[in-house]
Amino acid sequence: MTCQGSPRPLDALFDPRSIAILGASDDSSKWGHTLSRRALESSGDRPVFLVNRRGAAVHGRATHRTLGDACTAYGTSIDLVVVCVPATGFAEAVADSVAAGARAIVAITAGLSESGSAGARIEAEAVAIARAAGVLLVGPNCLGVVDTTTELQLSHDLLAPGSVAMLSQSGNLVLELGELMARRSLGISRFVSLGNQADLTVVDFLESCLEHAETRAVAIYAEDVVDGRAFIASARALVGAGKPVVLLAPGRSPAAARSAASHTGSLTSTSRVVDAACVVAGIHRVENPTQMVDLLEGLLGERRMHGPGVAVLTDGGGHGAIAADTLAAVGLESPMLELPTRTELLDRLWESSVVSNPVDLAGAGERDPMSYARGLSTLLAAEEVDGVLMTGYFGGYSNTSSSLAEIELAAAGVIADLVTDQAKPVVVHTIHPDSPSGRVLRSAGIPVHRHVVRACDVLAALVERRGVSEEDCLALPPAGTAVTDTSYAGSRALFAAAGVLFMPARTVRDGLELRAALDAPGMQFPLVLKATGTLHKSEGGGVVLDLRDQAQAVAAYVAMVARLDPPAVSVEVMADLAAGVEVIAGCVRDPRFGPVLMVGMGGIFTEVLADTAVALAPVSPGGARRLLLSLRGAPLLLGARGRDPVDLDALAAVVVRVSQVAASHPELDQVELNPILASSTGAVALDARVVAMRGPDAVPSGVGSLRCRHAR
Amino acid sequence: MTCQGSPRPLDALFDPRSIAILGASDDSSKWGHTLSRRALESSGDRPVFLVNRRGAAVHGRATHRTLGDACTAYGTSIDLVVVCVPATGFAEAVADSVAAGARAIVAITAGLSESGSAGARIEAEAVAIARAAGVLLVGPNCLGVVDTTTELQLSHDLLAPGSVAMLSQSGNLVLELGELMARRSLGISRFVSLGNQADLTVVDFLESCLEHAETRAVAIYAEDVVDGRAFIASARALVGAGKPVVLLAPGRSPAAARSAASHTGSLTSTSRVVDAACVVAGIHRVENPTQMVDLLEGLLGERRMHGPGVAVLTDGGGHGAIAADTLAAVGLESPMLELPTRTELLDRLWESSVVSNPVDLAGAGERDPMSYARGLSTLLAAEEVDGVLMTGYFGGYSNTSSSLAEIELAAAGVIADLVTDQAKPVVVHTIHPDSPSGRVLRSAGIPVHRHVVRACDVLAALVERRGVSEEDCLALPPAGTAVTDTSYAGSRALFAAAGVLFMPARTVRDGLELRAALDAPGMQFPLVLKATGTLHKSEGGGVVLDLRDQAQAVAAYVAMVARLDPPAVSVEVMADLAAGVEVIAGCVRDPRFGPVLMVGMGGIFTEVLADTAVALAPVSPGGARRLLLSLRGAPLLLGARGRDPVDLDALAAVVVRVSQVAASHPELDQVELNPILASSTGAVALDARVVAMRGPDAVPSGVGSLRCRHAR
Repeated sequence: MTCQGSPRPLDALFDPRSIAILGASDDSSKWGHTLSRRALESSGDRPVFLVNRRGAAVHGRATHRTLGDACTAYGTSIDLVVVCVPATGFAEAVADSVAAGARAIVAITAGLSESGSAGARIEAEAVAIARAAGVLLVGPNCLGVVDTTTELQLSHDLLAPGSVAMLSQSGNLVLELGELMARRSLGISRFVSLGNQADLTVVDFLESCLEHAETRAVAIYAEDVVDGRAFIASARALVGAGKPVVLLAPGRSPAAARSAASHTGSLTSTSRVVDAACVVAGIHRVENPTQMVDLLEGLLGERRMHGPGVAVLTDGGGHGAIAADTLAAVGLESPMLELPTRTELLDRLWESSVVSNPVDLAGAGERDPMSYARGLSTLLAAEEVDGVLMTGYFGGYSNTSSSLAEIELAAAGVIADLVTDQAKPVVVHTIHPDSPSGRVLRSAGIPVHRHVVRACDVLAALVERRGVSEEDCLALPPAGTAVTDTSYAGSRALFAAAGVLFMPARTVRDGLELRAALDAPGMQFPLVLKATGTLHKSEGGGVVLDLRDQAQAVAAYVAMVARLDPPAVSVEVMADLAAGVEVIAGCVRDPRFGPVLMVGMGGIFTEVLADTAVALAPVSPGGARRLLLSLRGAPLLLGARGRDPVDLDALAAVVVRVSQVAASHPELDQVELNPILASSTGAVALDARVVAMRGPDAVPSGVGSLRCRHAR
Repeated sequence: MTCQGSPRPLDALFDPRSIAILGASDDSSKWGHTLSRRALESSGDRPVFLVNRRGAAVHGRATHRTLGDACTAYGTSIDLVVVCVPATGFAEAVADSVAAGARAIVAITAGLSESGSAGARIEAEAVAIARAAGVLLVGPNCLGVVDTTTELQLSHDLLAPGSVAMLSQSGNLVLELGELMARRSLGISRFVSLGNQADLTVVDFLESCLEHAETRAVAIYAEDVVDGRAFIASARALVGAGKPVVLLAPGRSPAAARSAASHTGSLTSTSRVVDAACVVAGIHRVENPTQMVDLLEGLLGERRMHGPGVAVLTDGGGHGAIAADTLAAVGLESPMLELPTRTELLDRLWESSVVSNPVDLAGAGERDPMSYARGLSTLLAAEEVDGVLMTGYFGGYSNTSSSLAEIELAAAGVIADLVTDQAKPVVVHTIHPDSPSGRVLRSAGIPVHRHVVRACDVLAALVERRGVSEEDCLALPPAGTAVTDTSYAGSRALFAAAGVLFMPARTVRDGLELRAALDAPGMQFPLVLKATGTLHKSEGGGVVLDLRDQAQAVAAYVAMVARLDPPAVSVEVMADLAAGVEVIAGCVRDPRFGPVLMVGMGGIFTEVLADTAVALAPVSPGGARRLLLSLRGAPLLLGARGRDPVDLDALAAVVVRVSQVAASHPELDQVELNPILASSTGAVALDARVVAMRGPDAVPSGVGSLRCRHAR
């Protein structure tokens, strides 16, 4: 997957030559007041023009009545216009900006598409004007932009400079993130309040971060990523360039989805689809601002864990045990240390120390804080250790006695050097994070936390992800010839043409065709009859199984026609369900990410346990395999309960084909094989279904529809 | 369940008339140094005697060479002796203390049972001496005791007074908890470092908290609760008296269990059993010190939620959505508000506010911080709201302008009054917890947090637990007549006598007995043969199914005898597995909590999914029902996939009987019915097994053994 087209250059936005505030105000409750102050105080040497339609002074400065007046006064065009006017005047303000020669507009104005159809019309009109003139537009309903690398601060609060680009659909959240970042000595390279993303979207800003040298990591709060596939492509590019991307995207709960809808009017993807997108994009998805900032700090360091094995180093059994449990809760391990490591530790600590892992100094820290450094040195050199968590009291020995204070500070220096000289990460949890020793560790880039769960969260994020290869992130293929026949036979034909095997079948419309079908080559008894036309369902009597001879088949056909009068009946060879495992594979269309594949084990696994896994379509054979093996019921595929394992390659191939059919047919809302019978000798589909989109404006079904139908 | 016997009075420990430090030292690295200082400085008006065997001065004070000398100097016996001598002199020190008339001993000495068999022998000897004299002993390997209500501080650090009793097996952890508690204005009523619990155990101290008026909540860090059933009984009594109990018990991960074993030499229960115990005891189990202190603060307030419905109140869509997701993650809900509530909110906020839930003031807070109070008032009065989470920026408006500062502070006062005047809890997350407004809220007892996940954790703990009734917490019955026949037939007979139904069966040892069995009344074909003697297993050919007539039965019998030569063969009527659902019920014996019941769905649910649930045995019919319905596969019992629901009362009755058999037969390590066939017409056991304890010193099997065997 590669970026579509080249990114829009955003210099006019992030480094304008001049600025005007349209809607400048002396009323402190107005955004035009705050933005004016920021522009006057914190926009480098750029000329700033305040426009107030009554010409009233703002912040003691004379204003212009119109943008045109400002241009005239300036003698040339104005580069960037911040629009703070009421919604009703928004389109006119954009037009005025274009007329004033603006290359970029920051649209603070709210009450537009997020407020209903009237606002949406105004917004659409304004965006059309801007686009026609090739003018960049951020927002509307946004809170401003900041670029600390060009001394541009056009937002509510002043943000400290640093290396994190922050793209957000929430204003107050940025205040929270800013406060948390300041505490961890992190700062902002660029900040964009995304607003309604009517013109520039999160994707444009992601793309711009790639070439922005001062940006070393990207933090996103997004309720809507607008173009999911482009979002993934640009995030992948950033991650590939060593710039981690951390995403806070609420919506796991119904209430959060409801909130997002009312907040920015976003058309949200289900949370499982966002998770699947993060996997292929290499994005770290977080749950709250605290976790976001903690991970940013950790990920800005260069050290990564090559596996999940963490050594816990402590001077207290309780702290060690709690840390081990907390690491396990975030998916990490505290493996028993190897004998050479244990021997060396015992040699370098003291006889009471516990060296299995957790490593408990058992009082050695109190006798000599340098014990921590000695233990750490051994642990970092041990092959079975991917990273180290120091937990407990380090930093507090200086409270105990002044003689310990000196040794502890020296130990902190040794630890800082030890960590710097090698590639494994160390994260510290301590009761005394702000002690002199704690500060020494921090200044060496070691994350130091007061709460053990936050330290463990950071370590979990530092585990190097097994790289998602290019083949696992397949581009959408060009659309194939549109499917027009969505009947059962048409659905089967579509999948069969894609290479999916079905049981032999004939479609019959009367007794004569039935006789011919029963005599046709390959149509071995027992047979199955399925009524077509509506969805055939066992419950409605639309499927009759296990017809063992011609007489039974004919009788069943006559009864079915009398009962249901279907347009046609499919006569099919019956598969031996006991010889394999039933699997379901289907795709639905996500409003933002397009075709989404869902696989699940059939029978009780889907109906009772909702045991399904989700990926963006299309998937590669390897991706399909991993998806199948991620199911809770996967042991059944691998030969649980004394059965032969199924032919996983054949099954994965069918799953790949389902994903390809969906990906190459954007006119289809849903495609599904349910069930696929997987056995040791192959995989054969027993039923097929496709559903067309209900029209160009139809809201796609979303990933929930497939699951809900199965899970009832 | 009630306390066994009456608690030991601990006055001599918590309010001694005089104190001696045996092993007082001027070496600052020794515990005898620190404890001497604490005793001299912080033990009220009590006389304190320092005993140093060389008679050297300690802290500038003259010392006595022996306890006897100290008694002579004092003129009477010494009430409490703190023993800080090395391990080798421990027993002698205890004997000296007894001789000095001590009523209580705080044994700091380490290197005893936690260090191996030599230390264990010394410890046992010392405890025998103390017990014979009726002297209370805390520890050994402990760090002291504190009772702020009697001005007794005999521990490493001074602890601030308050209403929480802290019982801990870890010293450094107490430092962490103390620091966290101070931040949240909580303090200690009593602190006990439990150490090896050789005499007094956590149970004794729990019991003593019941009558201790100054103790309003109990915090426990325990790796070993010693007597699990008594622990539950005393915790239940505390909870019943309105004193919440919060337990930090590591051991969910293998590394934590390993750490606990080396730390205090504890025989730990598996974490699932501890969870089951917490359910019946009404204990809040937490995962780390931060959560422990957060919950203590919340639980010390009187307000509780009657259900899981939380209203989220915020002035920012991002904060609202994140809060909703976080609440869902901790098991709470943010239900859509009812129409009257929404109408009233719209009336009291402004037109842009979102009133569905999350309630987003959408700028109203910035216009008028009193909006929060108006919104909160409506939410607290709404029937669908069990509690409120305020999240985001409250406390920060005073930074925006001084005019807002006054209104915000007034709003905080109104909010504090609102909360005080009613019974629903409010918890606050804000970027500005330490603002003047934040402090007003806190001083009204409203928990104010900087991190949303911690605020949500507190709310989750405030949900009133559906009271575990007395019948769900059944006492162990008196032991029945010991089972000696653990053969298959004996196992069946044991369960049958308890009221469990089996399929008709006959045990046969030769061809004649076989013939008689086949002709016996009730022995209808098809039949099953099971080889007895060793465990019959299908894999080894020890079970032959579906014998449809005499000839087949005889042939199968001859073949089985020739192949396996079993001591006997059980001939049984075969059940129709397709007519029901297979369920497993069994009990194992936990080293601390005794008989533990585990139920699970049979087949793939146990073998592939490890879908099991655990409770302490015996269970009531209601308890058995809830346990069964907690399984992931429970829909199968309720009639999933078009089947009739099973007779849940009959199935629960069988589960109850399994739990009763285990509870009344302490000589059995394991008892099990696998499978039980549950159908709409009843529940019948198809196989039974009991395993005797391997001797009085055998380590019980633990709950893992049952699961592992099933899950392979």
